[in-house]
Amino acid sequence: MMDVDKVLAAAAAGREASRARWFELLRIPSVSAQPAHAGDCRRAAEWVRAQLAGMGFLAQVRETGGHPVVVAQHPGPTGTGPHLLYYGHYDVQPPEPLELWSSPPFEPVMTEGPNGPRVVARGAVDDKGQTMTWLEALRFWHETAGGPPCRVSVLIEGEEEVGSKNLAAFLETHAEELRADVAVVSDTNQWDAATPAISTRLRGMLYTQIDIRAANKDLHSGLFGGSALNPINLLTRILGELKDEAGVIQIPGFYDDVPELPAALAAQWNALGFDERAFLGGVGLSEPAGEMGRGALERLWARPTADVNGIWGGYTGEGSKTVIPAEAHAKVSFRLVPGTSPTKVLAGLRDFIVARLPEDARVSIQVFSMSEGIKVPADSPYVEAAKGALAATFGRAPVLMGCGGSIPVVSSMKQILGLDSLLVGFGLEDDQVHSPNEKFDLACFEKGIDSHIRLLDALSRIQPR
Amino acid sequence: MMDVDKVLAAAAAGREASRARWFELLRIPSVSAQPAHAGDCRRAAEWVRAQLAGMGFLAQVRETGGHPVVVAQHPGPTGTGPHLLYYGHYDVQPPEPLELWSSPPFEPVMTEGPNGPRVVARGAVDDKGQTMTWLEALRFWHETAGGPPCRVSVLIEGEEEVGSKNLAAFLETHAEELRADVAVVSDTNQWDAATPAISTRLRGMLYTQIDIRAANKDLHSGLFGGSALNPINLLTRILGELKDEAGVIQIPGFYDDVPELPAALAAQWNALGFDERAFLGGVGLSEPAGEMGRGALERLWARPTADVNGIWGGYTGEGSKTVIPAEAHAKVSFRLVPGTSPTKVLAGLRDFIVARLPEDARVSIQVFSMSEGIKVPADSPYVEAAKGALAATFGRAPVLMGCGGSIPVVSSMKQILGLDSLLVGFGLEDDQVHSPNEKFDLACFEKGIDSHIRLLDALSRIQPR
Repeated sequence: MMDVDKVLAAAAAGREASRARWFELLRIPSVSAQPAHAGDCRRAAEWVRAQLAGMGFLAQVRETGGHPVVVAQHPGPTGTGPHLLYYGHYDVQPPEPLELWSSPPFEPVMTEGPNGPRVVARGAVDDKGQTMTWLEALRFWHETAGGPPCRVSVLIEGEEEVGSKNLAAFLETHAEELRADVAVVSDTNQWDAATPAISTRLRGMLYTQIDIRAANKDLHSGLFGGSALNPINLLTRILGELKDEAGVIQIPGFYDDVPELPAALAAQWNALGFDERAFLGGVGLSEPAGEMGRGALERLWARPTADVNGIWGGYTGEGSKTVIPAEAHAKVSFRLVPGTSPTKVLAGLRDFIVARLPEDARVSIQVFSMSEGIKVPADSPYVEAAKGALAATFGRAPVLMGCGGSIPVVSSMKQILGLDSLLVGFGLEDDQVHSPNEKFDLACFEKGIDSHIRLLDALSRIQPR
Repeated sequence: MMDVDKVLAAAAAGREASRARWFELLRIPSVSAQPAHAGDCRRAAEWVRAQLAGMGFLAQVRETGGHPVVVAQHPGPTGTGPHLLYYGHYDVQPPEPLELWSSPPFEPVMTEGPNGPRVVARGAVDDKGQTMTWLEALRFWHETAGGPPCRVSVLIEGEEEVGSKNLAAFLETHAEELRADVAVVSDTNQWDAATPAISTRLRGMLYTQIDIRAANKDLHSGLFGGSALNPINLLTRILGELKDEAGVIQIPGFYDDVPELPAALAAQWNALGFDERAFLGGVGLSEPAGEMGRGALERLWARPTADVNGIWGGYTGEGSKTVIPAEAHAKVSFRLVPGTSPTKVLAGLRDFIVARLPEDARVSIQVFSMSEGIKVPADSPYVEAAKGALAATFGRAPVLMGCGGSIPVVSSMKQILGLDSLLVGFGLEDDQVHSPNEKFDLACFEKGIDSHIRLLDALSRIQPR
């Protein structure tokens, strides 16, 4: 019996224990966006560190300017294979609005879905569940074969959901220590419940908060209406003009760095037979609302967006209040394609707003997150290894896909450590990521563990260049 | 000594007691918009009823579908003068945002201002302070002369700040009982601290809440951005297009019923020498923001407005959340000129929104308030009587002005009871009505009492037609 088969057998025998460890992590409300949960973020980091230490890793919780990072190293059997850097994040999105959850967000429960049992909790999939797939793979390698089949480093951060704002500095400071041959990341989706996927494209992001101020206090709309500037009316005008009716972003020069999708890639994506009506139907929508005249996967994976993620100002209580408020606010984010500079988009956004400001309005723009979109080479031996591991686990070949989301660390690892990332993820479209009732199918979790067990084996056989 | 001089002398001797009674009323947090304060609204009604009963009125708290109404009658000396209906409201605006108050909103304090002492509290002027000016006038007539010099009815409601939504039905049901010769209302401003005013124009209002819904839950902007409809982007587009860059409302046909200001009235208003820069400067603004190419008082008193009074949707907490929300909401109000039908504007607004809705968006429009703008005849004997009473109290002739605010009951009293209203008010521009630190100058309060004492005398000498 090959080592890998023994490890797989151990994983099959240890399903219940794997699930119990995953649940432990889910019970820690490590919401990175909310300062009240800073202590919980640290608890999650400590929990992860202890897991790794128990698998023979030299594991530490390291300080940053924000929530801490877990770093761990295992030498593996000396002299064989490449050095792998596994990346994950232990932080989660805020669970609000709480009233839409059918069970408490930090008390995981198992329910029945169309693909069998599923686990419902904030972070079930993003990214605690996905991180646990490779942590469990490493655990079964440790328990069965005494350790991973090649050298492994681990980096688990706690600020992915708030833009990984301290991670780039951390990578720069510890570049020597963290440099490896390839990074492995599980924070993306399968193609569908039966078909695995490797993601070779990620969008980048610019996430901002726009604050507009006018009068020095709230005013009565009867006394001042017709004379005083209303910052909400102004904000709606600015944001309303951000895209035209065809969904095209109106910031001058915005598309200068947005390349057209290569025909070959467009053809490959079209061949996937993505059913956008079904995709939207699952959330109660029927019509695509992005850029007109573009393919569905092109819009989701290879075109930029401009979304208002939050807006507030004036009286928002019950009933009526005839106020012209002093301030109005919005959270506005852009998904960016590889090649677009978030810094340039930020400058364009600022100019776009300033050009629409009357004399009495002042604007401030806070930046919460900036990352470039990235492309991963699809022809490397690492991708080949992943194709084999996934095909063996799922019984069918993986799809090479794009991803509309952003994993800022992937571009940071490329820029700072010179590392390409192998993006193998086990989420499904209906996982309610960032929404109430987030879930992860148990079958995805378990196939994720098995895939990572096989992937470790396959990667260990590659001779690094 | 004439009766009126004795009454004025009694008022002069009773300043402290008048202030104490006013403070008692201010301490009741009768916020009509907030259901938690329903009991306080009833307490305020009871307090007012008891005051009137103590002055020899037959006074009752009457039920409505919402907060109760106080109705009171005094026959006066039989056979003389007209029958007057005094109107006021005991409810106040919500005090929020509380952190901007320099003292608790429902604990009146006396501070020093440029015109001498002032009282700071929610409702100090609007409308508890103004209502108290004529209640105190009636009290001193009662204490000095045994009652008012003519027949007086009183109507004090508790829903003015939420659009007087139950008052029209109440007036219809009790029309016979409430019909009088003229209504007297104090809910408007003086021209300035030294110059009294009679308002002969009021704007009407349509106050709505617009709720837009799209997906059946909040979505991840990475997974769905570029495909799913974002209801905040849609709402900002709709509201951003509500007015053009020149401040002109874009609802088709909106201006069909908006008459141009008569040249004579425009000339009269221009002669008032209103300093809009100083008016705006007082609240930290420098440039008029209403319809371009219109006079300042014309914009404030005789042109319609469209203001977003509140907006909310998506993630509004600290930091970032990459969500495409399921819903977006706004409170939108229109100030309307006499002749414009709020019903017609509502229909136009609905069409304007529906024309901009993609297939997947649903809108609902809640109406919190509807009233027509009104014009009061400036040449009646009642206006003449008020001119004399105000001139005698202030030592200078009153200005006949417009008012940008809305007093829905004035149009209801016109339509349902056939009553014109005499609008004599004692507020000042810097009273912070509806804002934190609302105040009423003590001199305005006391001159208001004296003016109403003289006005009762002058009105009682008119022979009703």
